[in-house]
Amino acid sequence: MEGKKAAESRIIMTEIVLPNDTNVFGNLMGGRLMYWMDIAAALAAQKHCNAPVVTASVDNISFENPIKLGNAVHIEAKVTRSFHTSMEVHMKVWGEDFTQQYKYKSNEAYYTFVALDPNRKPRPVPQLVTETDEEKKLFDGALRRRQLRLILGGKMKPDDAVELKALFIKD
Amino acid sequence: MEGKKAAESRIIMTEIVLPNDTNVFGNLMGGRLMYWMDIAAALAAQKHCNAPVVTASVDNISFENPIKLGNAVHIEAKVTRSFHTSMEVHMKVWGEDFTQQYKYKSNEAYYTFVALDPNRKPRPVPQLVTETDEEKKLFDGALRRRQLRLILGGKMKPDDAVELKALFIKD
Amino acid sequence: MEGKKAAESRIIMTEIVLPNDTNVFGNLMGGRLMYWMDIAAALAAQKHCNAPVVTASVDNISFENPIKLGNAVHIEAKVTRSFHTSMEVHMKVWGEDFTQQYKYKSNEAYYTFVALDPNRKPRPVPQLVTETDEEKKLFDGALRRRQLRLILGGKMKPDDAVELKALFIKD
Amino acid sequence: MEGKKAAESRIIMTEIVLPNDTNVFGNLMGGRLMYWMDIAAALAAQKHCNAPVVTASVDNISFENPIKLGNAVHIEAKVTRSFHTSMEVHMKVWGEDFTQQYKYKSNEAYYTFVALDPNRKPRPVPQLVTETDEEKKLFDGALRRRQLRLILGGKMKPDDAVELKALFIKD
Amino acid sequence: MEGKKAAESRIIMTEIVLPNDTNVFGNLMGGRLMYWMDIAAALAAQKHCNAPVVTASVDNISFENPIKLGNAVHIEAKVTRSFHTSMEVHMKVWGEDFTQQYKYKSNEAYYTFVALDPNRKPRPVPQLVTETDEEKKLFDGALRRRQLRLILGGKMKPDDAVELKALFIKD
Amino acid sequence: MEGKKAAESRIIMTEIVLPNDTNVFGNLMGGRLMYWMDIAAALAAQKHCNAPVVTASVDNISFENPIKLGNAVHIEAKVTRSFHTSMEVHMKVWGEDFTQQYKYKSNEAYYTFVALDPNRKPRPVPQLVTETDEEKKLFDGALRRRQLRLILGGKMKPDDAVELKALFIKD
Repeated sequence: MEGKKAAESRIIMTEIVLPNDTNVFGNLMGGRLMYWMDIAAALAAQKHCNAPVVTASVDNISFENPIKLGNAVHIEAKVTRSFHTSMEVHMKVWGEDFTQQYKYKSNEAYYTFVALDPNRKPRPVPQLVTETDEEKKLFDGALRRRQLRLILGGKMKPDDAVELKALFIKD
Repeated sequence: MEGKKAAESRIIMTEIVLPNDTNVFGNLMGGRLMYWMDIAAALAAQKHCNAPVVTASVDNISFENPIKLGNAVHIEAKVTRSFHTSMEVHMKVWGEDFTQQYKYKSNEAYYTFVALDPNRKPRPVPQLVTETDEEKKLFDGALRRRQLRLILGGKMKPDDAVELKALFIKD
Repeated sequence: MEGKKAAESRIIMTEIVLPNDTNVFGNLMGGRLMYWMDIAAALAAQKHCNAPVVTASVDNISFENPIKLGNAVHIEAKVTRSFHTSMEVHMKVWGEDFTQQYKYKSNEAYYTFVALDPNRKPRPVPQLVTETDEEKKLFDGALRRRQLRLILGGKMKPDDAVELKALFIKD
Repeated sequence: MEGKKAAESRIIMTEIVLPNDTNVFGNLMGGRLMYWMDIAAALAAQKHCNAPVVTASVDNISFENPIKLGNAVHIEAKVTRSFHTSMEVHMKVWGEDFTQQYKYKSNEAYYTFVALDPNRKPRPVPQLVTETDEEKKLFDGALRRRQLRLILGGKMKPDDAVELKALFIKD
Repeated sequence: MEGKKAAESRIIMTEIVLPNDTNVFGNLMGGRLMYWMDIAAALAAQKHCNAPVVTASVDNISFENPIKLGNAVHIEAKVTRSFHTSMEVHMKVWGEDFTQQYKYKSNEAYYTFVALDPNRKPRPVPQLVTETDEEKKLFDGALRRRQLRLILGGKMKPDDAVELKALFIKD
Repeated sequence: MEGKKAAESRIIMTEIVLPNDTNVFGNLMGGRLMYWMDIAAALAAQKHCNAPVVTASVDNISFENPIKLGNAVHIEAKVTRSFHTSMEVHMKVWGEDFTQQYKYKSNEAYYTFVALDPNRKPRPVPQLVTETDEEKKLFDGALRRRQLRLILGGKMKPDDAVELKALFIKD
């Protein structure tokens, strides 16, 4: 299977915040945003592997700025690295108030997807080919994030997470 | 402000998986589940602090078993610990197929909420009083998870995360 | 077929009132609540009979207190009695304002469901075993409510409704 | 306040059954139908009283024929009688399969609404003027249905329900 | 195949404007209205041809008066003319504020549908029989509108649009 | 007011076709697509004028290829020309099947929006500055489309539509 460029998986999604998407403060609910991010990231993963995918995990998300009722939500999703049958997708999320001409970052996130064959078994996906510096940096970090995911999911011992450990022990 | 018991914040939410909630395999989409979890967890946090709350962050979630179309989704949410103006909420999620009499775990997760006053500024929340062993264990782990959140959010240096570091360095 | 306990069919559902669920007064629309109640009650009936069910009828519902935008809706559903292929489900519905720490009753209701086999024909369901006094009282009343349903549906003559008639004629 | 004709309150609503409206058998869920009926009936009541209304109660509903995915749902709503501040609305519901040229009755129902003034207090509504025989029959039956509602809601003693009692005792 | 009367295809749909249907001014969004109109018109077309239909095109729509939150939307749809396998449907749309007793026109529109057989190929539809003057006028105009559609879709040269050309050249 | 470049108003929206968006053939309903297009186009218009906008009219739309359940929908919207207080927005719509690696055009369309001030009165918008050949061609055509809109809306006589007339009369 030939490798595919990160840029080929890029998806841009734009939504508008409607009343039912908001909490009592008139700001976008976190859960609604995570729903849209799941769809945007799944589309990027499908674009990379040309197969149906299912969400395997979601990394820590921190919501920085609330997005207001009537504002636009921009989600940019791109595959950062593929592992045998799974892909990590990175997203950047902004809000935008066109009236105020004010664009602000909401959060960044990583979702991981598994590609499935018609029998619903995991199937191999193409390797990711990086081009820009940002893509290379995201590619390298993907290994560390994967170790954290495995530890938090109880599938790896902290001692075996060589790349992650280096964050805590500098000698 | 008096402390409040963990059990008092408990919320049980039951949903049914409808066609629009599913992916091409007829299983509940991850994003839809995270949306329901956000509502269940926000209700538990509000029950604890008696004030409106907003989602501050979501910890790593790993989806173990798909939940099928027509099955029930059970979400049990409970506050695990409160910090000055924020609360961590723990959730357990199961799917249930009543016809097959089969109940299965989907995932566990931690969402963090901030309580707001009428001017949308963070406001203090009651301390959490634990009673059962499970509540105490979740309370203790909350500190470690918080350090991880702060590191991942770029707000704490790995070196300062004493409790978390202990996971990687045993001497 | 062995009998099953009423308590085993218990379902708790919690929802939050969002803008699209409200009328011009900012209160939950009756129709939206009846939709949620239908899902909660169907789940309780399925839990009892372990088969798919369809709504056969809904008894008189009287809405006592409006539930406000942003408040939680709690629905507790439990099977009260089973007839050959049908089950009556009783529900209690409360609203709750966490900020005001105010919980209030909205209404009580009875929905009736029929269990279906794979050919969509009615199929027998387990008998209901009651344990508490409240369960026994609901079980006894179910016969009277059924007679009323049959009369209102034009399937029984008032004269044959012995239990119901006793309400009007005391000698 | 001048009386208004029943025919002036008539509302016809047509919907189509979409996937998310159906149960596992591909038939319209009862709860979804009750939601649409609530909106149709509320519009008829508002047309009669020219004021906002809230749902006060719903009478016994019996679902006769399932309405299938892709079929049309027709709801015809008309006020049958007004009491001081409330109105009873009668509805007829049909399903229609245009491909098979098959139109079938689903159910009939009565919903009751209360008109509210800007301070959310009940306000008087116009008397209903009937013209056709069917309207007169529905007008007369409204009194008996109201007594049943009051008895079931615990607000009237069976002994005081003169019109209703006559159904059970014929001498 | 026998012709069918225009009146037989008539559909009346009534909706209420809920918060999620509105823009920042509290008025019905154009896109939401076009969605409802698509369903109403498709039902009218199906009623005429007794077969499933798909939307082929939508003519120029001009929105005259905004419809407000809480108001009713009335859509009246009727087939104006059938071509070999397609049907043109005309709609009139009104808003209505029951409290103010104010009914106002929103817009008129023409949608065109194609009837499909079980293999998803276009299938012939019955001819339309007109009765009233308005139906005859709509029937005659349909030819001119069809030419405009074909020209705008690049499927006809302006020179061949005899009926339409007459609008511009009067000699 | 300074002019603004066409490219600055560009919006890309990506959606996925879910079950409730489809007709009986499993294809995206035209009305649902028009709803998404309305949101995408409104965002492009707002980006150009930095003010709230309302949909004034929609030009003839012809649906070429059905978009299937599970496929992605891409909508690219860009302002083509501004008139005193209104803007014409051009959209291109594609479907994409990632599994088959098949991208196909669905349709092109023009929506027109009016910018409003806080009192809901039309307000002037910036002129459009074109850069590419395609932008210039769309800019020129906008005048002709506007004349057609005015004629169809009954606000211009065919004789006065100089640019449009040239399409029919070549001497």
